[in-house]
Amino acid sequence: MSAYRDQIEIVLVRPLYGGNVGSVCRAMMNAGLHQLVIAGVRPEMDWGEARKMAYHASPVLNARRETESLAEAVAECGLVAGTSARLGLYRSHSQTPRSWGRKAVEQSAANRIAVVFGPEDSGLTNEELALCADIIQIPSAPEYTSLNLAQAVMVCVYEMYVASDQFEPSEEPSVEAPSALREKMFELWHDALMDIGFMKEDKATHMMMGLRRILSRGTLTENDVKILMGIARQAQWAAREERCPEDASPQTEP
Amino acid sequence: MSAYRDQIEIVLVRPLYGGNVGSVCRAMMNAGLHQLVIAGVRPEMDWGEARKMAYHASPVLNARRETESLAEAVAECGLVAGTSARLGLYRSHSQTPRSWGRKAVEQSAANRIAVVFGPEDSGLTNEELALCADIIQIPSAPEYTSLNLAQAVMVCVYEMYVASDQFEPSEEPSVEAPSALREKMFELWHDALMDIGFMKEDKATHMMMGLRRILSRGTLTENDVKILMGIARQAQWAAREERCPEDASPQTEP
Repeated sequence: MSAYRDQIEIVLVRPLYGGNVGSVCRAMMNAGLHQLVIAGVRPEMDWGEARKMAYHASPVLNARRETESLAEAVAECGLVAGTSARLGLYRSHSQTPRSWGRKAVEQSAANRIAVVFGPEDSGLTNEELALCADIIQIPSAPEYTSLNLAQAVMVCVYEMYVASDQFEPSEEPSVEAPSALREKMFELWHDALMDIGFMKEDKATHMMMGLRRILSRGTLTENDVKILMGIARQAQWAAREERCPEDASPQTEP
Repeated sequence: MSAYRDQIEIVLVRPLYGGNVGSVCRAMMNAGLHQLVIAGVRPEMDWGEARKMAYHASPVLNARRETESLAEAVAECGLVAGTSARLGLYRSHSQTPRSWGRKAVEQSAANRIAVVFGPEDSGLTNEELALCADIIQIPSAPEYTSLNLAQAVMVCVYEMYVASDQFEPSEEPSVEAPSALREKMFELWHDALMDIGFMKEDKATHMMMGLRRILSRGTLTENDVKILMGIARQAQWAAREERCPEDASPQTEP
């Protein structure tokens, strides 16, 4: 996926707060991206705060490209998307980060791609949005559509990363246990629940139906089933141990 | 969707930085959520910084619930998910924020739901994860799996918000123009391109194929087609104006 990694740039236009720039670096590294462009650096930018919030993502911060204008930043890009919360004239054809993320990943094989974010206070101007063929609108509640800059970047790069299909969740192979093993387990539980005196034969069918329902709601792996069988065996053993002295001793009680 | 709004709580366990707590409030409001719980408030918490970063989301910050422990925070919840970057023993059955978000929205009709986030430096302990029936692992590049707390919250609440299907992208109804209107437009362009001398009849078919290809790549709404027809008509008019004086004046040139 070197196309994905090397073809996508994140462009911040005249950002105000160093902390946001730093958090953007971190979001980019979480998504496997490394090309940051700042279009229009403000002289008052707090780079110390940026470094602090970048945490271990300072390589992205240090390797940033700086340009005078957005036009210069995206000059080489075949696909340019701007983000906007406000929508109106010229901003009406918006796409979700999810559908755009898929498009970006597809096109990254052949094109350089830029995702553009405006200043925290004012967003992109109409002139800047005109440079963006696509407009991304991040889903948010109508009562509160103002997104923090770094969180807006997070959503967009997260969607691209998911679309790039590189992520493999750490999962143990959770193959359902085969039916025969499950049935053996239920038999064992039946016997154990009888042995420990939890139920008698007349209620057993009903109880076992309940237990089946409880244990069939999620995945039961072979390992899970073996744990459950171990519990049943141990309960049987404990019940026998309990009974042993009684069995051995003479029954003096009526 | 009042179930969604009122049944989901975001639990931060012993957070370190006020700025993150504030950003979490903002992410929650973006996703239409309002129930924040802080389990284990640190005495050194910088509430001023939290208010600053919460921006206009301070209602969520002010209405927060504080508890001694995670157990107390999630006591009433039927579905509890913890987030974890590290995975290992007891952490192996992770879900993505996307699949879990769908589950949360479905279950919010009947259950109170908590999404739990650990401290910035150490994450949730094994004891705390044991209180979480589900574990969410946020997709991130293997080289850099450490997510900023507020950004981790953002991804999770964003996925729930998207799954809740409340978001309606601001789009103008982009119905494709009907074929007859498109054909009329191409005819008009054919005539206009002849009239302005852009092409002659022998190249016209080839040129018009190229123009069709260009204009058929995206959606063309009725309104778009009308704009394009207007351009063609205006070009014809301009070409006629240009010619008029010539036509009117005697042809002295050969």
